[in-house]
This record gives sequence, C-alpha cells and structure tokens, in this order.
Amino acid sequence: MIIIDGKETANTIKQEMAAEVAEMKTAGQKAPHLAVVLVGHDGGSETYVRNKIKACEFIGFESTLIHYEDDVSEEEVLKKVVELNNDNAIDGFIVQVPLPDHISESKVLEAIDFRKDVDGFHPVSVGRMALGLPGFVSATPSGIIELLKRYKIETSGKECVIIGRSNIVGRPMSILLSQKTPSGNATVTMVHSRTQNIPEVCRRGDILIAAMGSPGFVTADMVKEGAVVIDVGTTRIKSDQTKSGWKLKGDVDFETVSPKCSYITPVPGGVGPMTIVSLLKNTLLAAKGGMF
Amino acid sequence: MIIIDGKETANTIKQEMAAEVAEMKTAGQKAPHLAVVLVGHDGGSETYVRNKIKACEFIGFESTLIHYEDDVSEEEVLKKVVELNNDNAIDGFIVQVPLPDHISESKVLEAIDFRKDVDGFHPVSVGRMALGLPGFVSATPSGIIELLKRYKIETSGKECVIIGRSNIVGRPMSILLSQKTPSGNATVTMVHSRTQNIPEVCRRGDILIAAMGSPGFVTADMVKEGAVVIDVGTTRIKSDQTKSGWKLKGDVDFETVSPKCSYITPVPGGVGPMTIVSLLKNTLLAAKGGMF
Repeated sequence: MIIIDGKETANTIKQEMAAEVAEMKTAGQKAPHLAVVLVGHDGGSETYVRNKIKACEFIGFESTLIHYEDDVSEEEVLKKVVELNNDNAIDGFIVQVPLPDHISESKVLEAIDFRKDVDGFHPVSVGRMALGLPGFVSATPSGIIELLKRYKIETSGKECVIIGRSNIVGRPMSILLSQKTPSGNATVTMVHSRTQNIPEVCRRGDILIAAMGSPGFVTADMVKEGAVVIDVGTTRIKSDQTKSGWKLKGDVDFETVSPKCSYITPVPGGVGPMTIVSLLKNTLLAAKGGMF
Repeated sequence: MIIIDGKETANTIKQEMAAEVAEMKTAGQKAPHLAVVLVGHDGGSETYVRNKIKACEFIGFESTLIHYEDDVSEEEVLKKVVELNNDNAIDGFIVQVPLPDHISESKVLEAIDFRKDVDGFHPVSVGRMALGLPGFVSATPSGIIELLKRYKIETSGKECVIIGRSNIVGRPMSILLSQKTPSGNATVTMVHSRTQNIPEVCRRGDILIAAMGSPGFVTADMVKEGAVVIDVGTTRIKSDQTKSGWKLKGDVDFETVSPKCSYITPVPGGVGPMTIVSLLKNTLLAAKGGMF
C-alpha cells in the first residue's frame, strides 16, 4: 500500500512553477498576477486567502488582495469584477466564497470573464470542460487528476466510482475521468444519497473517490481489494489529541480501509494541498495566454 | 413488454403546445417565434429544417428561415447571429449544423446569446445544465427525459447505464439522470469504447440508454431481464424492404432484445420524433421568459 503524499507533490509542483516563473522573468516577461477578492472576516476564508497569497509569493507571482468589509454592497463588488475583467495587468482572479447573504454569489461569479476565471466556477468554464474545450478546471478535481498522473495511476478502462455529486468535486470528476483523454477513459459511476446498495456499487471501483463530506463513511467492506482510494472529505471534528481541540477527518475510515488499497490519500496531506497549487497552475496558464 | 411510442407522445405534446399558444394569442400575447439559420443544401439538414418549420406552423409558432448559399462567409453568418441576438421579435434561434468547412461551427455557436440558445449547444447552456441552473437542455436528452416522465418510468435509485459519451447525448444524459431532481437521482454509469467487459456493465442497467451510433450493437446478452431500453441510434442502412432502398437502424437489436424488456423505444418512432418537440418546448420557454 502506497500513501499518496499530496503535500510533497504540491511542493514539487510549486518548485517547478517557481522555476518556470523565474525563466519567464529572465526572458523579460512579467510575472503572472493573481487577484483575490475577499469580503468580510470569515475565519476559514481569511486563512484560505492568506495561504493563496503566500503561495503566490513563494513561486514568484504577483498578487493583489482586495479586502472589503462585510457591509460592502453587491454593486461595489460587481464594479470591482468588471474592473478586474478589464485590467490587463491581472491574469486571473477569484472571488472567495462564501459571500454575505446580501450579495448574490451566482451574480458575482457569472460576472467574471471566463478567460480570467481561474477558480473554474463560471458556467462557461464548466460547460467548456464538459464539452472537452480548453478552459479552466476547478481546483480540487484538477488537483486529483494531477495526483493520479504523478503517481502514474492508470485510469483508462478502469472502473471508477465517485461518491458525491457536488458541483465542485463529484460532477466535474465524473466528467473528466470519463472523457476521451489520457487522464480519462475510465468507466465512471456516480454514487449519491439515492443510490441503492452503496457498498456493492463502491466495491466495483478500481478507483474510488469519496467526496460527500461524511467523516469515516467509507469502510473496508465498501472497498475492492487493491483499489486506489482518493479521499476528498475534510470535516473538522473535535479531538483531544490536538492542541487546537480539532482535527480534520476524511470521508474514508483510513485505518481499516488502507490495508486493502494499492494507493490511498491521507487526510490531511492528500488532496487538500493540491487545491491551491491547481489555482496557481490556472493562473500560470492564464498568464501564458493562447488558451482561448 | 411495452413499446414506447415516441411518435404518439410527440403528437400529444404538440397538441398541448398548440393549445397553450392559442391561449397566449387569446390573451393578446404574441406567438413564440423561432428563427433557423441554414447554410447550403445538405439533404439531411434541409429535411430537418423543413420539419422544424412545419412543426412550428402546426402549433402556431412564428418561424423565420434564413437560408444562405454554401459560399456565404463566416463573417456574414456571425453578423446574422448578432442581429438575431438583438432582435426582440425572435425568442430563440438555431444554426443548423453541419456548416461548410470554411465556417467555424464553434465560433458561430458560441456567438449565440445563451438566452436564445434553444438548441442548448452553447457552453453556457451546457455549464448551466451541469450546475443545475435554469437553461436550455439540448433536444435529444430532454426528449428522452420527457418520454421517461410520460411513461411514468421511475429513475430515482435505479441503475442507469449510458453507452456513448457524445456531447449531444451521452454526456448530458449522464448529468441529467444523476442530478438531484425528480427526473434524475439515478445511479449512472457511462460506458464507452475504452470500457472493459461492456456486456457485464450493461447488464447492471435497470435503464439502458444506447447512444453510440453502432447499428445493432446491443444484443440480448447485454440486457438485464426487465430493463427499460432507450435506443438513440439512427443509422441509415441499405434495405431491399423499402421503396427508398434505405432504412433507419437503431443501436439495439430490437428483435432479440425487446422480449427481455419492460419498456423499449423502437427505431424509427421512438426517441427521434421527440427531438423537434424538445426544440419547440425550448422556444416556448424562451418566449414565456423569466428563465434567466
């Protein structure tokens, strides 16, 4: 059984990108530039945004943080989106969600020019991905694809079972893995709350991706011997083993499942560290241009 | 075994729409108006377009045909698309594909305003469908969903196997049937050329949808006893039994498969007649407004 080290892989990719950015600069090009719009003071969001900015600095990207107070108007945020769409200095930008209730998330996300939509949440980005056209793929699915590639895990012809049908993980994963591409070509089944005989369906998976946000849901009896198990869950649960009193728990019961696997991602340190890296990769792609 | 009568169902829906349009007119509203852009003289395309216009007339829609010769420039077609986007008299329009080689299909289709994209081929339409947002669903998948509804075939919790991963049938079907909606909630598996043990995977299907365009591909050994079989294939093959010397053959070997089924669609007369009806339904939705 091999534990897929997302942290190490993410670091490797960051170093590769840092080298590429250094080369770009040597060649007289400007560094890629990511802008982040943050509204309010949600603890989780502030941490995510800080980590994104830090990662930008590490690999030599320019970054700009636009931080509004909670009471900023929807109009003001939309105006900023239009401004960033038209600002040639900005290669890509994201609006950190969740937004306060008085601001429509879909209105704001749909106002982003899809050519700068490095989060890949815009309907055009999702549609282009589904149609197999070039475009930005959202961070978590693209991070998982990258992990499978780096660990040389074959997907073609494999049965792949995805638990969870969310717009940001399950749905795009099912599309990417079943597409006619070198990192696709799997026979994909989507499992969700209405699926009957969930354990039986899961046991078909040569590759099993758990992304429903239910800690410890996947137990050993649901996993095929020798399967590759990717755990996307990250639920914060109480713990007396950590200083903070909390720890992250995945959707997979690691202790009992891991002995049956050929490969497995841990939580934390598996899929999680890959997400920021994927956002940065999208920004680098945007900066290079020629995608659209 | 019940044969799903697509022709009759399509006629019923056309009559329902005709009644609705008559009511709209009585209430002083204008009739829905579909425009069709056709380039050149491809025999298949001319027939399709003629049937679409005829169906419009039957149910009381206004219709406009813009017919260009083969040598029309891409610029001219794009100009027309912009004109139709801005024409308030037109509720929805389509550009009939295929287009001649010197005109970029994707460029033309992407120029259509998604609010008038009644064919549902625009990346925004596909993205909105994938995200579960209101939008236009392309004709064949929405016709199949309608047939399942009209025949009260339960999808929730059923295993559904879709053969073929095309952008216009397999992919959207897999999304619609697995979504959290009354006509979805199925456990969906996508089968394609790289799938191993295709017969075994197909036999899991309580609902089996064949959409790969390979005449007679699905044989009795690939079908679960009591399954619902939907045949989307329509390949023209030579025949000495018809006056024209041709007949349409589906992806399912009807003779051997049908005795095993609870429900099955024939070819012709199954899914086919539903596609035009779905286009008209989209046009009616566009005319009613309030979707976006």
